[in-house]
Amino acid sequence: MFKITTRSKISKARLGKLETAHGMVNTPIFMPVGTLASVKSVSPDELNALNAEIILSNTYHLYLRPGEKLIKKMGGLHKFMNWDKPILTDSGGFQVFSLSHRRKITENGVEFKSHIDGRTLFLTPEKVIKIQEDLGSDIIMPLDQCTDYHDSSDVVRQAVARTTRWAKRSKLAHKKKNQLLFGIVQGGISKDLRTLSINELVELDFPGYAIGGNMYPFGEKVRNKKQFLPMLEFIADRLPAGKPRYLMGVGEPADIIEGVKLGVDMFDCVLPTRLARHGVVWSAKEINLENGNFKYKRLNLRKSEYKSDKKVIDKNCQCHTCREGFSRAYLSHLIREKEILGCRLLSIHNLHFLTNLVIMIRKSIKSGKL
Amino acid sequence: MFKITTRSKISKARLGKLETAHGMVNTPIFMPVGTLASVKSVSPDELNALNAEIILSNTYHLYLRPGEKLIKKMGGLHKFMNWDKPILTDSGGFQVFSLSHRRKITENGVEFKSHIDGRTLFLTPEKVIKIQEDLGSDIIMPLDQCTDYHDSSDVVRQAVARTTRWAKRSKLAHKKKNQLLFGIVQGGISKDLRTLSINELVELDFPGYAIGGNMYPFGEKVRNKKQFLPMLEFIADRLPAGKPRYLMGVGEPADIIEGVKLGVDMFDCVLPTRLARHGVVWSAKEINLENGNFKYKRLNLRKSEYKSDKKVIDKNCQCHTCREGFSRAYLSHLIREKEILGCRLLSIHNLHFLTNLVIMIRKSIKSGKL
Repeated sequence: MFKITTRSKISKARLGKLETAHGMVNTPIFMPVGTLASVKSVSPDELNALNAEIILSNTYHLYLRPGEKLIKKMGGLHKFMNWDKPILTDSGGFQVFSLSHRRKITENGVEFKSHIDGRTLFLTPEKVIKIQEDLGSDIIMPLDQCTDYHDSSDVVRQAVARTTRWAKRSKLAHKKKNQLLFGIVQGGISKDLRTLSINELVELDFPGYAIGGNMYPFGEKVRNKKQFLPMLEFIADRLPAGKPRYLMGVGEPADIIEGVKLGVDMFDCVLPTRLARHGVVWSAKEINLENGNFKYKRLNLRKSEYKSDKKVIDKNCQCHTCREGFSRAYLSHLIREKEILGCRLLSIHNLHFLTNLVIMIRKSIKSGKL
Repeated sequence: MFKITTRSKISKARLGKLETAHGMVNTPIFMPVGTLASVKSVSPDELNALNAEIILSNTYHLYLRPGEKLIKKMGGLHKFMNWDKPILTDSGGFQVFSLSHRRKITENGVEFKSHIDGRTLFLTPEKVIKIQEDLGSDIIMPLDQCTDYHDSSDVVRQAVARTTRWAKRSKLAHKKKNQLLFGIVQGGISKDLRTLSINELVELDFPGYAIGGNMYPFGEKVRNKKQFLPMLEFIADRLPAGKPRYLMGVGEPADIIEGVKLGVDMFDCVLPTRLARHGVVWSAKEINLENGNFKYKRLNLRKSEYKSDKKVIDKNCQCHTCREGFSRAYLSHLIREKEILGCRLLSIHNLHFLTNLVIMIRKSIKSGKL
C-alpha cells in the first residue's frame, strides 16, 4: 500500500507512494478539504489543474446532509462530487468533540445534537465505519475521542483508552478491504500517554496512522512551537517507520515543512479556503528549500494599501489567478464587495500555494536538500 | 459600426455585426451582466468558453465602488476585470430610478442617496458620460429618466422630454468617439409618447438605440404579452432600420426569441445568474427553431424530487456543468447547503443556455427558418 522511495539523509523526511483504490498518492502530500463534498468554491477540474492528488471530506457533515445513504445511491462520493482521484474521510470524532456541551460520550459511542436541526443522533465506531463504507472513500478514519489542550491528564488517559477500544471495534467492523482504515493517535501533550496510544494502536496493525488531538491551545495565533514540534517529533519517531503518518488539521506552510522534516507524510487543513474567504492570501518572499529558505507572508487584500495595487498576488506564482493577471486591486474589490469570484480566485491561489509547496518539498527530498 | 448581413424573409429578424473598440459582436446577442465588474461567480475564461461575446457592467454601481477613478487608474474596466472583449455600460438611470423615495430628479440631474452608505450624490448627464469615459467601456448609455408601468401619461410625457434633453447634453459631452453612445427610448406604454421619443432621438442620430422603461408591471410573473409584444413591435418598427436595437433588461428565453422576430438585436439580463443563486435552471424540452419549436422549462433544483436525480440538468446541453456530468442530485445538495460551487455551476448552465440560444437564433436566421 505504502512504499517509501527515498529517505532524506539530513532530516527525517521521506518520499513515498501511497496506493489507494482510486490511484496513487505521492507523499508528502497536502489534502484540500471538501467538507460537504465540495472544496469551497473550487471545481474538480480546477483541483486537477492545481495538482491536487487527494482531497478530504467529512463524515460527520455528509452524514447529516445529504446523508451517506443518498450518496451511496448516487454511486458513492467520488461519482457524486465528480472527483475520480483518492478521497480521505475523517471520522467525525473531531466535529462531535467540537460540539462541546451538545454531546455526551459513553462507551458505546457519542450522542449529540445536530448543529443543523437539533435532532439527537448517535454515532458508534461501527456506525462511523458503515457510513464511510457507504461513502466509498479510499482512506477512512475510526471514531476517536479527542481531547483539548487544557484537559487534565486523567481525562486524556481515559480518552486514549477509549480511542483504543473504539479502534479495535472499528477494525472488527471494517469489511471493505479496498478502503484503508488508519488509526488515530491521541494522548494530548503527555509523552507517556502518546506512547501508550501508539503502542496500543500499532498492535492493531493499521496501514497508516493519524496524529490527532491538540498539541497547542485552540485559537492561539502563534503556535507554541517549543512544545508542538518536539511533541510531534516524539510521536513521529515512535510510529512504524514504513507506514504513512498523517498530521490532522495542519496547513500553515511553515508547519507543513517542519512536519515533513520530522517524518510526517500527510496534511490537511481548511486554512487555504477559509483565509481566502476573509481576503487573506499567502505570498512567497523567498522559496529555496534547497538552502532551507522558505519565507512567506500573509497579505490581507482588504487592506486599503491593495485598493490600487496593480501587481498580481505573487509574480512567480503559477496558479490560475496569478498567471491570468488578476491584480491585487481587482481581487481587493471583489473581496470587499463579497463577489463570489473573489473567494474563488483567492482559494485557487492559496490551495495552489500548498499543493505547489509539497511538490517543491518532494523535489528537495529527492535531491537530498531537505 | 453596424452592418446587417441578413434579413429574414419570414420575420423582422436580422443578422448583424456590430464593430466596437474591443472587437466585433454578432447580433442578435445576449449580454451577461457583470454589475460590479464580475459576472457573479463566473470567471472571464468561463465566459469565453461559453461563447459570451460582450458583457454588460453597471455605471451606477461602479461609480459607488470601487469608483471610476480607481478603475481608470488601473487601466480601465477591461484591464481591471481581465476581460478583453466588448463591454457595454448602462447609464445608471434605471438604478437611480429604482431608489424611488431616495432620489430627487431635477432638470440638471439626479440627486440620490447611496444605497451603500447613505451619502448624498449627484449625477448629471455630463457626469455619467465622464464616468463611462473613465471606465473605457465600448458602448455607453446616456442618463435617462425611467418611468414605471403605472405612471400617469403626464409623468411619462415629462420623462420623455427630459430624456431627450439629457440625450442632447450627453451627446455634447461625449468626446471619446471610440465609445458608441446609444440613445434610450422612453414613453412607457403610450404609442404617441414612444413615437415622440423615437423621433426626437433619431434626430440626434445615435449609432444605436436602446428600448427603456417598463412595458409590463414590475414583478409580474407571466408578462402581459398581449400588451408587451405589440408595443415592442411598434417601437422596433419605428427605429432606424440600419442601427442596432437593444431591449434593456430582457432575458427570458421566450422573450428573446420574440424580440428577435420583431427586429431586436441586443439583450441583457441578470436572470441567468439570479435564478442560479436560487437553484433554478432552464432546461430545453425541444429546441427546433427551424420549425418554430422552442419549448423549455424551469427546474427548481431545491425541490425534493431532484435530491436523488442522477441525470444532468439537460443531457443535450454542451455547457461545462452538463458535459462534465454534475448530477441534479449533487447540484441540489450544493444549492441547499449554500455551497458556492452550486451557484457557479448553475450560473454557467443558465448563461450558456442564453449564449447558445442566440447562436441557434443566428443560425436559424441565416438558414431562412426564423
